[in-house]
Amino acid sequence: MEATLLSSIRSPADVKRLSPEQLQTLADEVRRTLIETVAKNGGHLASNLGAVELTIALHRVFDSPQDQIVFDVGHQCYTHKLLTGRFERFATLRRQGGLSGFCRPDESEHDVFYSGHSGTSVSAGLGLATAKKLQGDAHYVVSVIGDGSFTGGLVYEALNNGGRSGTKHILVLNDNNMSISENVGSLAKYLAVIRSTPQYYTFKASTERTLSKIPSVGKPLVCKLYDLKTAVKNRLYAESTFFEDLGYRYMGPIDGHNIPLLCDALEAAKQVNGPVLLHIQTVKGKGYPFAEANPRAFHGVSGFNAQTGEVYPAGESFSDRFGLLMREQANKQPNLCAITAAMGFSTGLEPFKDANPDRFFDVGIAEEHAVTFAAGLAKDGMLPVFAVYSTFLQRCYDELVHDVALQKTKVIFAIDRAGFVGEDGETHQGLMDVPFLCSIPNLKLYSPCCFRSLQADLNQAINADRTPVAVRYPRGGEPESARKLRFEQIEFARCGDETAETLLVTYGRLSAEAADACDALRQAGIPVQVLALNQIRPLPEEALALIQQAKHVFFFEEGLRSGGVGEQTALRLLEAGFDGSYHLTAVPDVFVAQATVAEQLHRFGLDAESMAALVKRETEKKQ
Amino acid sequence: MEATLLSSIRSPADVKRLSPEQLQTLADEVRRTLIETVAKNGGHLASNLGAVELTIALHRVFDSPQDQIVFDVGHQCYTHKLLTGRFERFATLRRQGGLSGFCRPDESEHDVFYSGHSGTSVSAGLGLATAKKLQGDAHYVVSVIGDGSFTGGLVYEALNNGGRSGTKHILVLNDNNMSISENVGSLAKYLAVIRSTPQYYTFKASTERTLSKIPSVGKPLVCKLYDLKTAVKNRLYAESTFFEDLGYRYMGPIDGHNIPLLCDALEAAKQVNGPVLLHIQTVKGKGYPFAEANPRAFHGVSGFNAQTGEVYPAGESFSDRFGLLMREQANKQPNLCAITAAMGFSTGLEPFKDANPDRFFDVGIAEEHAVTFAAGLAKDGMLPVFAVYSTFLQRCYDELVHDVALQKTKVIFAIDRAGFVGEDGETHQGLMDVPFLCSIPNLKLYSPCCFRSLQADLNQAINADRTPVAVRYPRGGEPESARKLRFEQIEFARCGDETAETLLVTYGRLSAEAADACDALRQAGIPVQVLALNQIRPLPEEALALIQQAKHVFFFEEGLRSGGVGEQTALRLLEAGFDGSYHLTAVPDVFVAQATVAEQLHRFGLDAESMAALVKRETEKKQ
Repeated sequence: MEATLLSSIRSPADVKRLSPEQLQTLADEVRRTLIETVAKNGGHLASNLGAVELTIALHRVFDSPQDQIVFDVGHQCYTHKLLTGRFERFATLRRQGGLSGFCRPDESEHDVFYSGHSGTSVSAGLGLATAKKLQGDAHYVVSVIGDGSFTGGLVYEALNNGGRSGTKHILVLNDNNMSISENVGSLAKYLAVIRSTPQYYTFKASTERTLSKIPSVGKPLVCKLYDLKTAVKNRLYAESTFFEDLGYRYMGPIDGHNIPLLCDALEAAKQVNGPVLLHIQTVKGKGYPFAEANPRAFHGVSGFNAQTGEVYPAGESFSDRFGLLMREQANKQPNLCAITAAMGFSTGLEPFKDANPDRFFDVGIAEEHAVTFAAGLAKDGMLPVFAVYSTFLQRCYDELVHDVALQKTKVIFAIDRAGFVGEDGETHQGLMDVPFLCSIPNLKLYSPCCFRSLQADLNQAINADRTPVAVRYPRGGEPESARKLRFEQIEFARCGDETAETLLVTYGRLSAEAADACDALRQAGIPVQVLALNQIRPLPEEALALIQQAKHVFFFEEGLRSGGVGEQTALRLLEAGFDGSYHLTAVPDVFVAQATVAEQLHRFGLDAESMAALVKRETEKKQ
Repeated sequence: MEATLLSSIRSPADVKRLSPEQLQTLADEVRRTLIETVAKNGGHLASNLGAVELTIALHRVFDSPQDQIVFDVGHQCYTHKLLTGRFERFATLRRQGGLSGFCRPDESEHDVFYSGHSGTSVSAGLGLATAKKLQGDAHYVVSVIGDGSFTGGLVYEALNNGGRSGTKHILVLNDNNMSISENVGSLAKYLAVIRSTPQYYTFKASTERTLSKIPSVGKPLVCKLYDLKTAVKNRLYAESTFFEDLGYRYMGPIDGHNIPLLCDALEAAKQVNGPVLLHIQTVKGKGYPFAEANPRAFHGVSGFNAQTGEVYPAGESFSDRFGLLMREQANKQPNLCAITAAMGFSTGLEPFKDANPDRFFDVGIAEEHAVTFAAGLAKDGMLPVFAVYSTFLQRCYDELVHDVALQKTKVIFAIDRAGFVGEDGETHQGLMDVPFLCSIPNLKLYSPCCFRSLQADLNQAINADRTPVAVRYPRGGEPESARKLRFEQIEFARCGDETAETLLVTYGRLSAEAADACDALRQAGIPVQVLALNQIRPLPEEALALIQQAKHVFFFEEGLRSGGVGEQTALRLLEAGFDGSYHLTAVPDVFVAQATVAEQLHRFGLDAESMAALVKRETEKKQ
């Protein structure tokens, strides 16, 4: 199938020109394009497939960019990109210099708000709508949000404010009965109840459609009708009161794959004078049988065979190894618990979950609760491990400080995707955890460079450490060259020429790069030694002593420069009167765009080649 | 009135021994003690006065510490302290080495969980209850939480998890129709509706009381009765469904000042097999007419005349001045908005609010929403200023990163209570904002030392800066000695002997201390100069050049050492080959306990006297 219709869509205005019959063809072409592109480039497939009809309807009914559509997270924004002039660049999705997999205002005027973390679209939409109200601008603001995001407190805070504000704000709840993993919690149950109620809206919508066609008389009539129906409905179905208690008028549930129905419903939502929630039901993976059958596997994928639905296997990752170690430790430690914020699958916790379902807790996309809940568990004798991506750990900074570190509660943080994450780009980089964790008192921090070291750290954290502790490890697998490093103790490893005056210091994934750089430099006649920190906070005194003895110190850090370990080391050296040279290579204070991890390492001078080149250059300067 | 009954209470067991008639006498004595102590020591009065009967009932019905009572925030824990063996030490409340104004597990086995920030008690309680379930421990866990905390998303995340868990967890919602300022949002409206419904519980409770007296038969009967009544009630009053949609069985509303009724209700809650929410109504300031009439003024007080209710006036604070400047700027800038998270009064925003009610937003205790909402406002042409205490800014770290800094959205953060906060202690110190803000790309950071500088910074932030910007200032008033500093530009000020080899570098409140130290040292024959940074991020290059020229640099920082400005400066100096001496005095990586601000400054060597002594000592060493 050629994307003949889709390729003719240059802007939302073109969507409006299509006949109702053409819309389903467009949907089919979009779907085909999504599958083919994600099969090659990786990305978020299942959620995007579920939002095809919704997005078409949104661009039929609203006038972007004057009307603003805010997509939550961005796992459902690909169709939006295709319909807003980005079809031709779509093959560059998630590649260096290409289209982002998320909304990026610097990419298009139709992308209103950066997205990546969940639950922000309601607050942001409410802010936009309030600004419009203050400025007398009558355009619409629509927030599109999945049911998974409703497990997060930010959404509730926004509803609590939006509901009483009287601000015109349209919220589309795209309910596919899924969080990133399965959806959890009371609200998920509650939505399940609503979904099973008769779809009263189907009757209403067709009436409204007819009525709205008479412009000046029709719209107020629709409103009145709506009021009446709501009143009747609220007596019949108590289910709608949750959102209405929060001040949002509830409409739904309706079939989210029926474009005419969606258009009607969105038109009706436009007429509501105040905050309104339109509840639509969609199927994750819709139209691609492999994804419909296994939406979790097709949530975020690296690449797959579009014909067979076969997801290309990846080697063992740090997450996989972490999961196996957790299952192993659980056998020995009856108090060990595992907590995830909707990431049981991606953080590798499935084996633990299967073996110990009662000690496994998926709290939904609720990182804050995860941490304080963990602190409660720990206070009463359990040993909780919270497995979380570095970027999402940012969301519970205060709980980490207030409920864990301050109380010296032994909660273990298993921080996945620490460092560069590659194709997901700015919103997902794990470059801030070291800076923000290093200033938290009472917290110990490990950054293993290989699986053996991960195992040692986790073992130490679970069985020996008495304080809150975090183990951070990168996305992907073990770098082979990590084997070049010699561990004599848990705090750090070494390699290279121990008599050399030039010392390369680093930690985590870069340790293997440094070991390779060391080899390359030796071959170039420049003897260096490598110190790979495993414990990065507190800084091991013995490691500091080694650094102080060096004449030329090159510190490499896969994280932000400000507040990192390299900066701390500098202070220690300066205060101790160190008189050698010190050179820190870290990520300058920028947000790092998408590319492969290798490209990102290279861009910031953090791969073996760049390390060796730097040392060579500086050494030559000094001669 | 002597506290004869209260003084005989050594532990909760003693509360249980009192006759029902003695309980009201106890409540009166507690109230008297609260008023007298807070009048002298300062503290949280109105909320504590409202929770006297509730706390007595809790200790009648539950067996602390085996049963665990988790107080949210801690603004209602004073009575709990008085009833758990701390009456004799109560005069030391909030003083150095004395009783904390919040729950502190290191103070008593009856204080289960550190408190200070709001909304943590549900998650923590759920964690404790889950641990008990896993370990087969049948004791109760009770979380006591005010309605104000229900504006925060953490509570919702916890309810969403607790409700479906089936875990036995008792939640007491102490509804006094107040947040710290007035309560806001849809849920507050919703509670107001519930409060106006007939108190059906009063009929039920007396029946239950009678029934429960027959131990083995009575309790199951109470349960059955409860089930029946709930079923009936849910048909009659739709109001209960919000909490029940979230899976918590709803009981209430009942009079929170009636001890027998409270005891009955708590006994009934014990019988519920699963999560239950008991909604009680209390009056903030109850029993002290001045506080009842003006609960906001008596929320947190520094001291007052117990007889007349006259709150001792304080001098003009940074908050006051900030508020006046905001009102002034609002006249010139029609897009200027002010946002607060339930702190309109304490952050000085009342004058702005009165003059521009439509541009003032109190979002409730919802810092995360505040930031993302502000980002939305800013994206559509408004200029939002979020005024927030440093310690509470921790709660929206990720929103600051993801929704503001990443998008370069111009949101202004007015960070109040930056640095030591004095008597509120560990949970309220503003010592982390500099470390966690300094690693956020695109963010500019000012730390004024005086009102004139605050005005200049705010003016610059509002009218000139194009990026996200934060202005941080301390609790309390302008230090007089700040006048000794000469400002030639906005980035920094100077004083002392500009030819001196010894340089004192600092920022914010400490600038005045350094100026005083400079004077003291000159008198002692040690010439020094002072560099007071006003812009602390990015570090002004001209200031760095001045530092590099010095021979002995002493950096003083009212904040955590790790990740602070002193550490960053060290890196810059070391990389530039600085060969002088460098000495950083900052708060080591600890949580700082309560004392006066002066005591805290002195404890960490950050007052003028300590600064001068250090420089003298080091100078003598070098001679």
